[in-house]
Amino acid sequence: MSAITADFIADQNRARLADHREDFDALARKLARRGLDPEALVKDAIAFAVAVPSWGVGTGGTRFARFPGPGEPRNVFDKLADCGVINTLTRLTPAVSPHFPWDKVKDYAELREAAKRHGLAFDAVNSNTFQDQAGQRLSYKFGSLTHTDKAAREQAIAHNIECVEIGRAIGSKALTVWIGDGSNFAGQSSLTRAFDRYLDSTAAIYRALPDDWRMLLEHKLFEPAFYSTVISDWGSSYLAAQHLGPKAQCLVDLGHHAPTVNIEQIVARLARFGKLGGFHFNDSKYGDDDLDAASVSPFRLYLVFHELAEAKRAIGPSFAPAYMIDQSHNVTDPIESLMQSAIEIARARAQAQLVDAAALAAAQEANDALTAHRLLKSGFLTDVSPLIAEARLRAGGALDPIATYRASGYRAAVARERPAVAAGSAGIV
Amino acid sequence: MSAITADFIADQNRARLADHREDFDALARKLARRGLDPEALVKDAIAFAVAVPSWGVGTGGTRFARFPGPGEPRNVFDKLADCGVINTLTRLTPAVSPHFPWDKVKDYAELREAAKRHGLAFDAVNSNTFQDQAGQRLSYKFGSLTHTDKAAREQAIAHNIECVEIGRAIGSKALTVWIGDGSNFAGQSSLTRAFDRYLDSTAAIYRALPDDWRMLLEHKLFEPAFYSTVISDWGSSYLAAQHLGPKAQCLVDLGHHAPTVNIEQIVARLARFGKLGGFHFNDSKYGDDDLDAASVSPFRLYLVFHELAEAKRAIGPSFAPAYMIDQSHNVTDPIESLMQSAIEIARARAQAQLVDAAALAAAQEANDALTAHRLLKSGFLTDVSPLIAEARLRAGGALDPIATYRASGYRAAVARERPAVAAGSAGIV
Amino acid sequence: MSAITADFIADQNRARLADHREDFDALARKLARRGLDPEALVKDAIAFAVAVPSWGVGTGGTRFARFPGPGEPRNVFDKLADCGVINTLTRLTPAVSPHFPWDKVKDYAELREAAKRHGLAFDAVNSNTFQDQAGQRLSYKFGSLTHTDKAAREQAIAHNIECVEIGRAIGSKALTVWIGDGSNFAGQSSLTRAFDRYLDSTAAIYRALPDDWRMLLEHKLFEPAFYSTVISDWGSSYLAAQHLGPKAQCLVDLGHHAPTVNIEQIVARLARFGKLGGFHFNDSKYGDDDLDAASVSPFRLYLVFHELAEAKRAIGPSFAPAYMIDQSHNVTDPIESLMQSAIEIARARAQAQLVDAAALAAAQEANDALTAHRLLKSGFLTDVSPLIAEARLRAGGALDPIATYRASGYRAAVARERPAVAAGSAGIV
Amino acid sequence: MSAITADFIADQNRARLADHREDFDALARKLARRGLDPEALVKDAIAFAVAVPSWGVGTGGTRFARFPGPGEPRNVFDKLADCGVINTLTRLTPAVSPHFPWDKVKDYAELREAAKRHGLAFDAVNSNTFQDQAGQRLSYKFGSLTHTDKAAREQAIAHNIECVEIGRAIGSKALTVWIGDGSNFAGQSSLTRAFDRYLDSTAAIYRALPDDWRMLLEHKLFEPAFYSTVISDWGSSYLAAQHLGPKAQCLVDLGHHAPTVNIEQIVARLARFGKLGGFHFNDSKYGDDDLDAASVSPFRLYLVFHELAEAKRAIGPSFAPAYMIDQSHNVTDPIESLMQSAIEIARARAQAQLVDAAALAAAQEANDALTAHRLLKSGFLTDVSPLIAEARLRAGGALDPIATYRASGYRAAVARERPAVAAGSAGIV
Repeated sequence: MSAITADFIADQNRARLADHREDFDALARKLARRGLDPEALVKDAIAFAVAVPSWGVGTGGTRFARFPGPGEPRNVFDKLADCGVINTLTRLTPAVSPHFPWDKVKDYAELREAAKRHGLAFDAVNSNTFQDQAGQRLSYKFGSLTHTDKAAREQAIAHNIECVEIGRAIGSKALTVWIGDGSNFAGQSSLTRAFDRYLDSTAAIYRALPDDWRMLLEHKLFEPAFYSTVISDWGSSYLAAQHLGPKAQCLVDLGHHAPTVNIEQIVARLARFGKLGGFHFNDSKYGDDDLDAASVSPFRLYLVFHELAEAKRAIGPSFAPAYMIDQSHNVTDPIESLMQSAIEIARARAQAQLVDAAALAAAQEANDALTAHRLLKSGFLTDVSPLIAEARLRAGGALDPIATYRASGYRAAVARERPAVAAGSAGIV
Repeated sequence: MSAITADFIADQNRARLADHREDFDALARKLARRGLDPEALVKDAIAFAVAVPSWGVGTGGTRFARFPGPGEPRNVFDKLADCGVINTLTRLTPAVSPHFPWDKVKDYAELREAAKRHGLAFDAVNSNTFQDQAGQRLSYKFGSLTHTDKAAREQAIAHNIECVEIGRAIGSKALTVWIGDGSNFAGQSSLTRAFDRYLDSTAAIYRALPDDWRMLLEHKLFEPAFYSTVISDWGSSYLAAQHLGPKAQCLVDLGHHAPTVNIEQIVARLARFGKLGGFHFNDSKYGDDDLDAASVSPFRLYLVFHELAEAKRAIGPSFAPAYMIDQSHNVTDPIESLMQSAIEIARARAQAQLVDAAALAAAQEANDALTAHRLLKSGFLTDVSPLIAEARLRAGGALDPIATYRASGYRAAVARERPAVAAGSAGIV
Repeated sequence: MSAITADFIADQNRARLADHREDFDALARKLARRGLDPEALVKDAIAFAVAVPSWGVGTGGTRFARFPGPGEPRNVFDKLADCGVINTLTRLTPAVSPHFPWDKVKDYAELREAAKRHGLAFDAVNSNTFQDQAGQRLSYKFGSLTHTDKAAREQAIAHNIECVEIGRAIGSKALTVWIGDGSNFAGQSSLTRAFDRYLDSTAAIYRALPDDWRMLLEHKLFEPAFYSTVISDWGSSYLAAQHLGPKAQCLVDLGHHAPTVNIEQIVARLARFGKLGGFHFNDSKYGDDDLDAASVSPFRLYLVFHELAEAKRAIGPSFAPAYMIDQSHNVTDPIESLMQSAIEIARARAQAQLVDAAALAAAQEANDALTAHRLLKSGFLTDVSPLIAEARLRAGGALDPIATYRASGYRAAVARERPAVAAGSAGIV
Repeated sequence: MSAITADFIADQNRARLADHREDFDALARKLARRGLDPEALVKDAIAFAVAVPSWGVGTGGTRFARFPGPGEPRNVFDKLADCGVINTLTRLTPAVSPHFPWDKVKDYAELREAAKRHGLAFDAVNSNTFQDQAGQRLSYKFGSLTHTDKAAREQAIAHNIECVEIGRAIGSKALTVWIGDGSNFAGQSSLTRAFDRYLDSTAAIYRALPDDWRMLLEHKLFEPAFYSTVISDWGSSYLAAQHLGPKAQCLVDLGHHAPTVNIEQIVARLARFGKLGGFHFNDSKYGDDDLDAASVSPFRLYLVFHELAEAKRAIGPSFAPAYMIDQSHNVTDPIESLMQSAIEIARARAQAQLVDAAALAAAQEANDALTAHRLLKSGFLTDVSPLIAEARLRAGGALDPIATYRASGYRAAVARERPAVAAGSAGIV
C-alpha cells in the first residue's frame, strides 16, 4: 500500500543529514550566544501540533471552477490516509478536524480505529449548515441557526447536537460552529433579530455540550453573504461567547477580517478576556482567500504567535487555544500544501519563542520604539529552519518532507486506486 | 404558454395610472421650473437599453453552496423566455449577452429566431476559459490565454475565435474576454511573462475579429486567482487594449476593483483616452459580490453615469459603451432582480441627465466646491421614479414590473414545466 | 454686527415660498397615499437636532497643509457666533460640542451666557490628550491615558476630570473621550498592557463622572497611530464600556472603521446591548477623511438611520444617542458645510421614518428579500427636501440656508473683523 | 563636533567582530552549498545605495500633532550633517534627495560643497506645490499644476522649473513631481479637465528638463485630497508618462496604493513597459502611513525586489530605477529609523539575489506552484544579516550602526547645539 515507512524516511534523511548537522550546529551556537537554550527550543518545537481539516486533503475550488488533481480522496478513510502521510512526514499534525455530514460513516468506533492506524486522533468537530444536503427537509437558503423559520433553526440545532454526539464517539472535545447566515440586501433581514435568533439557537446547542467540551464560534466578514453576516466580526463573536458561558469561545480565522485590520491585536484582546478558543490558519491577500499559511504575510503570522506567546506568559498553562489549518488548495497537491503550511506555522511559532520578553517589556516601558521593534523582529529574522527540522528529525519525520513525499510516489499510487474526478463546471457565476 | 401579454400589462397598469399621472405631472412641473424639458427626458429614457446576461436568469451561488429556485431555465431557450419577460415588462433590456459553451446550440439561425420571437437580439458574446468542459482536451487549471503551455493557449484562442463565429451568426458585434488566469502563490507564475502571453494570445483573437466588432477586455482584481491576476486592473487592461489596436477596449465591471478605489475616475480616464468599451453593472460591498445594481451604493452608480454623460458631451455620439448587467442572484427570483436592476440603472442614468452641466462647469472653474457638489447631487436627490415609469409606460411596459410579474404567475408556470434542480453541495470550501 | 435676523430670513424665504408650497403639497399627497401622516412627519423633523463641534467652524487641514479662509474664528466666542448662524438658518443645531483646552476661557458662566445669546447650548465636552499644549508638564508623544508612565496617565486623567468640571459649569451632560494612543511599530507597545492601562485610567475618570452624565468612548482604526490603536474598533470600545459601567457607552464615528465594514450592523449590535451612546457624523471614502456627511455614501447614512429607527422601536424612548457632526472642512466655508451636512443628516433621518416597519418585518419573516429591500429603500428614494424645508420654515429657519447665508454677507463681515490667518506650512510630511 | 570618526567605528566593530566572522562564515558555507558565490554577493551588496530624503531627518507628524525630539535640524546644513551620520554608519545612503523650497539656500555651490564634506551627493529634486509658502502670490488651496486658474498653474510650473535649475547646480539628475491636487467632493472638479491640465502643465516642465534628466511622476490614491486625486494610480501615472515622452517615468511609493493591491505586479508592469523610474520606500498598514521600511510587510518588500531582479535580468543594465526612502518618523530618532530602514531595504534586496532564477523559471513553466513558491521564498527565509553586515564592514561602516550611533552621543551633542522645538498644536482636526 501507499504508506510511507520509517525506513524510507530514514533513507531519505540520510543524504541530508550532514548539511543539516552543520546548519543546526551553527544556529545552536548563535542562539546560545543570545542566551537561549537550543535543546529546550527543539523540545518545545517537538511538542507543537496543529490539526489538519479532513476536507483539506481534497482539491478546493471557487464559484467559477474546481480543477481536481489525481488521486482525490473518495471518502473519509482516504482522507485519513492522506492526513496520515502529512503527519508521518512532518510530525506536526497528529489530529484531524472532521466535517459533518461530509465525513459521516455508519460506525464511528471503526472511524476512530482507522484514524488510530494512521497515527491520528480527532480534533474539533465542524458542523455544516451552509449547504443543503440531499434529502434534507428544510433548506438553509435563507439561513440556518438564524433562519426566520423556527423549524429550520431546530433542524440546524439538531445537526449541531448530532455533531457533538459523533464527536464524543470519536474522541473530540470541541465543536466549531461556522454559519453562512447573513443577507445579500440591505433590509433582507433584521440585523438585530437575526443576532437574537443566533443567541437562542447556540444556547440550545450549548446546553447539549459536555462539560469538558468547548464551543468555538467562528466569525467571518463576508461570503457567502455579501451585504451582512450575522457573526461578522470578533465583537459579535465575543458578545455571543459571553452570552453563552464559559465553554463558548471565539475562533479566529486569519482570512475572515476586514482589509487592514490588526489581527494580532484581536488575538490579544480575546486572550485577555478569556475568550480566545482557537485558530484557523491560512493566508490571504484580498478576502477569505484560504491560501497556504505564511505564503502572503509571514510576518503577520509571526506577530500572531508573538501575541500567543505573550498571552501564555500572562495567563499560564491554562491558555491553550485549538490550532487548525483551514485552507483551500486549488493549484497544488493538497498533501504538499498542508505539509508546507504546517512547517511554516511551526516556523513562525518557533521564531516567536526567540524573543527576549523581558528586554522587550523594558524597551516598551521606556518607549524606545525602535529597540522594542528590533527585539520583536529578531525572532522573525532568525532562520530557524534547522531548529524545526531537528524537531521533525527527532520525532521521526523527514528532514525535507516535500522531497521525501515526492520520492515516495504516494500520489501516483493513490491515483491508481482512486478514480479520477471530473472537473467541476459548477455554472455558478 | 407563460408569455406576459400586452393586455395583461395594460390591465395591471390601469389601477396605477391615476397615481402615476399625478406624480409624473408634479415631477414634470418641478423639472420645468429648473429649465429642463420633461418630454425630452422621457424620450431620452425610452431610448436607453442595457443588456442582460443569459446566465443571469439562473440562480447563482458561491463556492459554499448554490440554492436553486423553482423553474430554473434548462437551456438557452428557457433563458431567452425569461429574458423576454424582463424586457416585456421593463422595456429596458432588448438584448441578451450569451456565454459559450454554456449557450451552445446546433443551429444558431434558430437561436436568433428564438430570441426574435421574444423580442430580443444578442449583445456581446462571452467566452469561457475559466472552467474545464467535459471532453476538453487540455485543462485551464493553470491558465488559458496565458498558460505556459502553447497548446493550451491555442485551445483557448480557438475557443474565442469560435465565439466570434457564433457571434456573427447571431448578430453580435462584440466579444467580451474575461479570464481567470493568475496565480495563488508568489512565484507561481512570472508576472511579466504571463502578461506577454496574454498580449500574444489576445493578438491572435484580435486578428480574427471582424472590422466592425469590438473586443472588450475585462479586468478583475482577484478571484478565482488569489495572489495575482494577469489583468487585474484598468492599467493592465489599458496597456493591453492599446497594444492590440482600436477595436480593443476596456470593460469596467463595478465589482472588480480594489476597496476604496474611485471607479468613476477610472471611467473618466478610459473615456478620455478612447478605451472605454463597456460596463458590467452590479453592486458590491466587499469583493466581486455581484449584488443587484444600486443596492449597496446607488450614489456611486449615479456618479458613474455622470461621468458617462460628461464623456458624451466631450466626445459626442461616437461615445457608445456597451451596457450589460452582470450579477449573481442567490436569494431572489433572478427575473425580479434583473428587472429591478435594469430599473435602478435607468434611474441613475435619468438622474444624471438632470445636472446643469454649464452651471457645474462654472462652479468648478470658480472652485466653489459646495455649489459644484450640490449641483452634481441635485440629479441624485430628484425622485425620477415617475419619469422612468412614464418611459416604460409609453414603450409598452409595466408601471410596476415586479408587481405585474408576480401577478402574472410566470414563475409558477415555468416551475411546472421545468424540473426542479437539486441544491448544490459542491464540497468546494 | 453680523447676526442674521428673522426679518432677513423671512425676506429671503418669500421668493421661494410658492415653489416650496407646490413641492410640499405634492409630497404630502404622495405620502398620504402611502398611509403616512405628513404633518406628523414635519413635527418629527422639527424635533430633530444634531450638535456642531466648536472646532468645525474653523478651516481644517491635513498633515501636508492647511489653507485658511477669510474670517477664521479667533476664539470660542467667534466660534459660537458662527455656530449661531448655522442654527439660525437651519434650526437643526441648537447645541455646540466644545473641545478643551482649545475652548478654555476664564469665566464659564460668561461662556454659557454667550452661547445662550446665540440661541445655543452645550453638548458633549471633548477632552484632548492627543496633542501637547504649551507649558504642559509631560508629553503625550508616547500616549496619554495608556502611557507607560503613571504620571503621564495621571495628567491625562486630571485633564479629563477638569473637562467634566467645565462641562458641569456650561450645562453639558456628557464627556467624549477619544485618544490617539497606539503604536507605529509592531512591538512598540504591549497590546494587552496598553488596554489594561486604558481600563484603569478611564475607570478613574468614570468615578469622577456625575450620575446623570454619560461617558462616550470613541474608537478609531488608525491615525495618528499607524500600526495599532488602543481603542481601534467597536469590540474594544464595547469591552471598555462594559468594564466601566452603565454610564459608559460607545460613540460611533462613521469614518473610523476598516474598509468595507458594515457600519449599520455595528450600530445595531451596540444598540441591542445598550451601549450605543452617540455618533460623529461625517463621510469618508478612504480613511478618516472627515468629509461632509452624505457626500460620499448617502445610502450608508440612511441605513444607519434605519437601524436607529429600528432600535427606537425596539427599545423605546430611553434610546437617545447623542448626535454630533465631526468633519474637517478644507475647501469650503465651514459654516456652509456644516449647514449642508446638518440638512443631509436631517434628510437621511426623515427618509428613514418613511419605511413601513410592519411590512418590512413581514417581508423579512417571509424571506422575500427583494420586497424587503425595496421597502427599506423606498424611504431613500423619496425626495423629502420639501418636508425638511417645511420643518425649517416652521421653526423659523431658511428655505435655502446656503443661499440665504451667502446673501447675508456674513463671511465678508466677519472677515473684516477677524484678522487673516497665514497658510500653514507645517513641514509635517 | 559631532561627526562620527572611522576610528570610533572601528573601535565599536572590534567587540562584534568574532561573532560576526563566525556567522558570516556559516552563511557563506551555506550559500556556497546552494551554488552561490558569497564574495560576489558581498560585492553586490556593497554596490547598493538608496537615497535619504532631506526632510526625513526631522521628526514627522500627523494632522493631529507633531512631537519633536531633541536636536531637530534647523536647516538644510543640519540635515546634511544628520544624513552624513546615516551614511557613515551604514554605507548605504550616499545621496540626499532635497525638497524645495524647504531646502532653499542662497548659494547652491556652497550647499553642494557642504554635502561633499559629509560624503554626500544629491539625488532627485522634489518640488512642493502642496503647501502655500509665506509671500506666495497665488494659493494652492484648490490645486497647483491642475488648478483651474492658469496663473496658479504657471506659478506651479515655474516653481518646478526653478527646482530643475537648482538641481543642475547641485548635481541632481531627476525631478520628482508629486502634487496633492484632487478634490474633496464629487463634482468639485472635472475629473477629465483636471487631468488634461496636468498633462499640459507637466509638458511645460518636461520641455525645460535637460536631456540627461528624468522626470518622476508620483501617484497616490488619496490624502491630502479625499474624494479624488488627479494622479491617483499607476494607470494615470503611466498615461501621463507616456504622453510626456521618454524622460518621463513613474515613481512607485509603497504606501500610495489601494488596500490589497498587488504592488509587485505594478512594478513588473511598469518595468515591462519602460516606465519604472523610481521608488519611495516605506511601509504601511492602512494608508500612506509612511512607516519604516519592512516594519509591517517585509515579505512584500522582498517581492518587490524580486520583481526588480527579474526586470534587471530581462532588460539589462539600462534598467536603473532611482531608490529613495520616504518615511515619517513620529516616535523614533529619525537617524535611527533611516539607518534601520536602509538596512532592511538592503536586506530585502540581498535576499532577492539568492533566488535561483533558472530553477524558478523551470518550476513556473511546469506549473509546479509549490516548488516555484518555495524557490522564490528561499531567499526571504535566509538570514542574510551577516552578508549585509560584511558589506557594511568592508565599506567602512558599522557592524551594528544603531548601537554605534547610540554610543557616539551624536543626538545629545546636536541637541546641545540646536534649540528645542515646541510641540505642534496645529489645531488641525
